Amino acid sequence: MEMTALSRLTGAGSDDIARVLRAILEYADETLSADAWQVAGHANVPFADLLDILQKLRERGLLEFPDSSGASTSEVRLTKQGEALARELRVARTENVTCQTCAGSGFEFEPFHDAYHQFIPLLAQRPPAESTYDQGALTADSVFRRLALMYAKGDVADQRILLLGDDDLLSLALALTGLPREIVVVEIDPRLCEFIERVAREKNLNLRVIQHDAREKLPADLRAHFDTFVTDPSETIQGLLLFVEKGLAMLAPGGGRAGYFGITLIEASMLKWNVWERHLLQNHALVFTHISEPFSLYAKGNELGSGVNINFPPMLVPPRAPWYRSSFFRVETLKEFVPPADYDSNPHDELYQDAESLDEAWAVLASGQAQSPIPVPEEFLNASAQRAAQAQNGLGRHVIAEFWNCENAQSENGLADAIEQAVRSARATLLDLNVRRFYPQGYSAIALLAESHLSLHAWPELGYVALDVFTCGDADPQKIVQQLEKHFRPRNTEYIKIPRGRVRMGLLPEPITLPVPV
Amino acid sequence: MEMTALSRLTGAGSDDIARVLRAILEYADETLSADAWQVAGHANVPFADLLDILQKLRERGLLEFPDSSGASTSEVRLTKQGEALARELRVARTENVTCQTCAGSGFEFEPFHDAYHQFIPLLAQRPPAESTYDQGALTADSVFRRLALMYAKGDVADQRILLLGDDDLLSLALALTGLPREIVVVEIDPRLCEFIERVAREKNLNLRVIQHDAREKLPADLRAHFDTFVTDPSETIQGLLLFVEKGLAMLAPGGGRAGYFGITLIEASMLKWNVWERHLLQNHALVFTHISEPFSLYAKGNELGSGVNINFPPMLVPPRAPWYRSSFFRVETLKEFVPPADYDSNPHDELYQDAESLDEAWAVLASGQAQSPIPVPEEFLNASAQRAAQAQNGLGRHVIAEFWNCENAQSENGLADAIEQAVRSARATLLDLNVRRFYPQGYSAIALLAESHLSLHAWPELGYVALDVFTCGDADPQKIVQQLEKHFRPRNTEYIKIPRGRVRMGLLPEPITLPVPV
Repeated sequence: MEMTALSRLTGAGSDDIARVLRAILEYADETLSADAWQVAGHANVPFADLLDILQKLRERGLLEFPDSSGASTSEVRLTKQGEALARELRVARTENVTCQTCAGSGFEFEPFHDAYHQFIPLLAQRPPAESTYDQGALTADSVFRRLALMYAKGDVADQRILLLGDDDLLSLALALTGLPREIVVVEIDPRLCEFIERVAREKNLNLRVIQHDAREKLPADLRAHFDTFVTDPSETIQGLLLFVEKGLAMLAPGGGRAGYFGITLIEASMLKWNVWERHLLQNHALVFTHISEPFSLYAKGNELGSGVNINFPPMLVPPRAPWYRSSFFRVETLKEFVPPADYDSNPHDELYQDAESLDEAWAVLASGQAQSPIPVPEEFLNASAQRAAQAQNGLGRHVIAEFWNCENAQSENGLADAIEQAVRSARATLLDLNVRRFYPQGYSAIALLAESHLSLHAWPELGYVALDVFTCGDADPQKIVQQLEKHFRPRNTEYIKIPRGRVRMGLLPEPITLPVPV
Repeated sequence: MEMTALSRLTGAGSDDIARVLRAILEYADETLSADAWQVAGHANVPFADLLDILQKLRERGLLEFPDSSGASTSEVRLTKQGEALARELRVARTENVTCQTCAGSGFEFEPFHDAYHQFIPLLAQRPPAESTYDQGALTADSVFRRLALMYAKGDVADQRILLLGDDDLLSLALALTGLPREIVVVEIDPRLCEFIERVAREKNLNLRVIQHDAREKLPADLRAHFDTFVTDPSETIQGLLLFVEKGLAMLAPGGGRAGYFGITLIEASMLKWNVWERHLLQNHALVFTHISEPFSLYAKGNELGSGVNINFPPMLVPPRAPWYRSSFFRVETLKEFVPPADYDSNPHDELYQDAESLDEAWAVLASGQAQSPIPVPEEFLNASAQRAAQAQNGLGRHVIAEFWNCENAQSENGLADAIEQAVRSARATLLDLNVRRFYPQGYSAIALLAESHLSLHAWPELGYVALDVFTCGDADPQKIVQQLEKHFRPRNTEYIKIPRGRVRMGLLPEPITLPVPV
């Protein structure tokens, strides 16, 4: 009873409570005491939720803070009652079976020991991590474990590699191996840029550094150029998508390119992982090939909570060992991959902080103020507020076009680009584009626009394309039709334009035959 | 020149050729000879494509088969010209950096050594693998590496575990640890069922075996019951989805449940992985938390090619070591997870073989017949071959409908279902459905059909819905419109029907105003 009441009370699902209990039991000694930092690193629950659950467990007498002054130890300990809850939730004490040789990464970096030994002193000299840029450097071993994984996948030797942000100095580690064909670092922090550049000069490394705020468009010569990108994005929904999609925009088209990014379950819930995974699969021709154990350890921790007056004794003591860790994701492009457009981030998007962020969790703890839920990102929404206003003139304009004897309807090559450009030229916004090839021939494309939709169906064997463009708002459907006509190059065309959604009835007028676009 | 011509010739993308060359170089000795079986296991290219690429490389003088009788060795060797191609494609020779301790799995199974030592003799006694059931057993080490990974994730101790198919005897390994709360095996092969049951009886293991063809609905008492499922599905698109979705149907609702499945890049292209990943994320509240290195090795191989008269010398020699390997996927449910309905598979679906299957690749090699591409599954596709035939009557029929004063246009709740049903009622095939809500109100849905498309845009504040249904073939667009009219319940409607793609010009007729459907 008590137990079920507890689940209800915390607001967390019993699965989150089970995760926290599992982490406590995994890191507990015989007295069932565990280091709160390691629990935070292994619970797979966002930090703020973890703190909330730990506090509520304590209030209910299920958990104790042995050093309640927070002066000497960061331990938490399950009470007898806490043990009973773990049993009820079927959380058993487990041994740590992570491979000690590779820390769970699956790869050894022994072949790179020369580079490794040159790298260690560099890490000590790097400018200190700067929280303004959401920094926090990986341990040297973690850097080289990432490197080994990338190498094993064929993404290092003789490859063109882009690092989008490089707190971790992975660029230097890569360059020290002498293996990549090209390494470019885009980094916002001038101190880091200077440091990496200086080391590269001194050691004569093949490495180029560009100081740039990745929230803005990247230099055009980087576009569609790389084989591999790596980024350690911030973990807001917008932040991750911005960094990863910019990475994708810089990859060369076609199959076999790779993107790597580190993400945690400390500042990102599984729901966020789900949003990211779905978004990336829906919008880009890629596949997840690898989601690693969270083997990447960060030298974060000492900075946390400083200057914040918190009443959470176990975490008043700084962590004794790295605890913050992330999983390394690998995506690989399919043959159909076309690099997406680069874009400036929306200046109103908060890229670094949301309710799941560490800093936010501390601030909440200090202020006692409840947090708001993670904000839903701009690009999943849309300003369709003007729609209603247009009801008077018809809500939408629908152009139906028939293209016959097309010179360029044989295949869907280049079609996605043509649609993207056509949509952009009409100042419309492409939300989703699906191009599908049929067997044995033929293809369709449907695009969801913020302003309605575009559809086309091609019968290459007949040189025929059926095109529909439906827009509302200011976007001009004829412009899109004209652009796509340039793509298909039909010798014969017909069009009609149908106003849609004219207020009240009698809405479907005689079709208006448009002049053939020049 | 030669090189680019080669890429064109093989029909494979240069990325696939690069993958094959990378695997050759990774497994090559100093003379650049590599075991063809290991190359097949590591190329990350479907087996049939691999054979095709190896043969074409040989025809072009880029690759040699040192033992051209196929009597003693399965080696393939790059020629000087082949090395040059590798350089051109920027494929460098890499060392194997897979962790030798854990074989890349990231976990050690030392804590389970008692169970492991009891397991080894069992594996030797098991009934031989039966290709009718797409069997092929994992090595004992691989079984225990899977077990260790599952254990580390909290999915073994005190958990209720379902095995959907169990060639590998993972159920016995799990039971021998004594850790799970409950283990149920659903297995089609009566010999295996009997074996597992007998061992369980003799060793007094906590284990229940149900002999059942998983293509049919599972016993109702298994539904929504388990914490964890494991399956090693066949690798057709339908096969994997059938097994994994049945596993999901048996999980208890809510967050923190886990599903595991092994899949290869030997019998499944990255395109298939993409289809699977997208389908699972789009249809179920889950997240991919783990995609492992392909550490699972199968004792497959000796059975292959027997009785098949192939002209491919390197593979006339049976493999000397396990070469067939798979990645282990882990999905975890979100709080929002509801187990899907169980279902009988469509008896017309081929679950075990497609053009990427091993057996199929051998058969092709034996017959010299070109293979057809992977059959795109029923639900993703359609026989669009009739399309051309219909050119006389117009290729497609397009119904434009305007629904005003709808009683049920407030939200998109239930819309996806309504669209699915409407499409099914017209015997059309839904390939992709995208429902998007706009802020602050309004929503759109676009559906790609095998027979063209459906789009709708709703202005709930005005009670207005703009609907377009465009079909070709036998599917009747009016039927879809009628069904959706039942969903939205408009008080006023208008329709026009426009034939699309009438042969030659003069194609756009006067619209025909349809009678209002009853």
